Amino acid sequence: MKKCRICGKPAEVFLISRNLALCRRDFVENFEKRVEKTINKFRMADRGEKILVAVSGGKDSLALLHVLKKLGYRVTGYHINLGIGQYSHESLKKVLDFQKKEGIEIIIENVKEEFGMGIGEISKLLRQPTCSICGTIKRYMFNRTAGSFDVIATGHNLDDEAATLMGNVLNWQIEYLARQYPVLESKNNLKKKIKPFVFMSEYETATYAFLEDIDYIVEECPYATGAKSIFYKGILNRVEDRMRGTKIHFLSGFFKQRGRFVSQEKRTELKPCIKCGYMTTSNICQFCRIKEKINNKKGGNHERNFLQNQ
Amino acid sequence: MKKCRICGKPAEVFLISRNLALCRRDFVENFEKRVEKTINKFRMADRGEKILVAVSGGKDSLALLHVLKKLGYRVTGYHINLGIGQYSHESLKKVLDFQKKEGIEIIIENVKEEFGMGIGEISKLLRQPTCSICGTIKRYMFNRTAGSFDVIATGHNLDDEAATLMGNVLNWQIEYLARQYPVLESKNNLKKKIKPFVFMSEYETATYAFLEDIDYIVEECPYATGAKSIFYKGILNRVEDRMRGTKIHFLSGFFKQRGRFVSQEKRTELKPCIKCGYMTTSNICQFCRIKEKINNKKGGNHERNFLQNQ
Repeated sequence: MKKCRICGKPAEVFLISRNLALCRRDFVENFEKRVEKTINKFRMADRGEKILVAVSGGKDSLALLHVLKKLGYRVTGYHINLGIGQYSHESLKKVLDFQKKEGIEIIIENVKEEFGMGIGEISKLLRQPTCSICGTIKRYMFNRTAGSFDVIATGHNLDDEAATLMGNVLNWQIEYLARQYPVLESKNNLKKKIKPFVFMSEYETATYAFLEDIDYIVEECPYATGAKSIFYKGILNRVEDRMRGTKIHFLSGFFKQRGRFVSQEKRTELKPCIKCGYMTTSNICQFCRIKEKINNKKGGNHERNFLQNQ
Repeated sequence: MKKCRICGKPAEVFLISRNLALCRRDFVENFEKRVEKTINKFRMADRGEKILVAVSGGKDSLALLHVLKKLGYRVTGYHINLGIGQYSHESLKKVLDFQKKEGIEIIIENVKEEFGMGIGEISKLLRQPTCSICGTIKRYMFNRTAGSFDVIATGHNLDDEAATLMGNVLNWQIEYLARQYPVLESKNNLKKKIKPFVFMSEYETATYAFLEDIDYIVEECPYATGAKSIFYKGILNRVEDRMRGTKIHFLSGFFKQRGRFVSQEKRTELKPCIKCGYMTTSNICQFCRIKEKINNKKGGNHERNFLQNQ
């Protein structure tokens, strides 16, 4: 039987990519130390700052909220009810249970209140890809709610980031490569953005959530079926199976080289949306455009201003 | 039944990644045109220049020698008998048959004559990885023989190059990325190096060889079993299966971005090997070191100078 490398007691967790066997207690401690180390390395936040953590109800985001609180950071959660049938109901339930159990404030907002319909119906009505619509809406609402916070955090893990990197590299999407980093400094009216789990594998965040008794939604979003990100994760797992440590080297090696992709040319100038004040490349931001289109098609209203919440 | 997109006759070849059906004659013509286009695009060679083509006996290298001759270039082949048992016997036989049939001069050299033993035995004796030893020896001998030629050409195809790129990117090997290009200009006493098949897939070169009645060795080198390059090819084929055109976009997109990897720092200075004159980073080149080590272990001789052949 394997023994914990730290205390010598029977191991319960074996991290293949790091060839490391640990007991339950030392795994949790090691996990938390590594998250803290990532936060410090990239100067993500200090304990005086107010952090808004996006929570979907899945393992990564709930584990992130949990570990940040445990490490002594000032955290608030933020959940968007996307209005995607049973999936959203279940997600909300997990978030509410977590809130009750852990005593962490979680702000909850609702896409249906905003648009009069859920993500699926919006996508159908506007004939635009669901994941793209959903990304735009979530980003906007998250930024809007972040008004009184210093930092916003998401639970993207190593597998997510390595898969994104794979897609960006296969297509040499230079602008995306230039912006893929564990911390993006505040700019215009957008808050500083951090990803403290960037070096923690999906297996590690799931194990941590399990050992810390966090109940999360296991199902993927029904619209994610067949997503490229999932495909790239599978590809990277195959490479990892053969060459241990590939994912972490691929990603951390990239971070050292990222400067090569940051162009010297002037980036597109952003200006405030004439409707809501959100920074955008055109006159009206994507979010207000979605609203306009829905209003045109259905004759709704639901006006609310980005700046009012800021 | 599919019809040839060019002449409308029944198609015999279907190129999935380009969604292109062609008859036998138009495939061959299209293949040759694209090779010519690659040569012109990267200014690889003109018809006055003498090209030495490395031929292993496999489909790519024999097809390259064949197509370059057909396109009117001044070509000579160069084959090294690596002394790898049955594999090398078969390879040599294919090369000799090809030479006879096509009437193209092919220079043949022999690792056993050079070192008194084949690649396998050298690797065993020196306890160094076979593919690394083989690469060093082939590169050296090829360059040495290239003395009176203007350009040297190899049959690396799209699948080879995309697999190499994948390995270089997963490990962010910046120096290798900086040098991965279809044409490398002449430098020191090394000749200009070209890869005219860089955009032709393995499937295309195999089909071309088949349709042009080129008999080649199908077996891979026995030492290549389990090679990383073969693994990466498999990975890329999986991605290609799902997203047609990935390989070509990955590679051609990289060529546009390659400048980002060329460092401004001074490259390591090369100087002539004190034994043979071959340009190297240390006093004695890798090839002469292999010779020395073998002589020390076995007490051989076989001295021959790089510059004598130049």
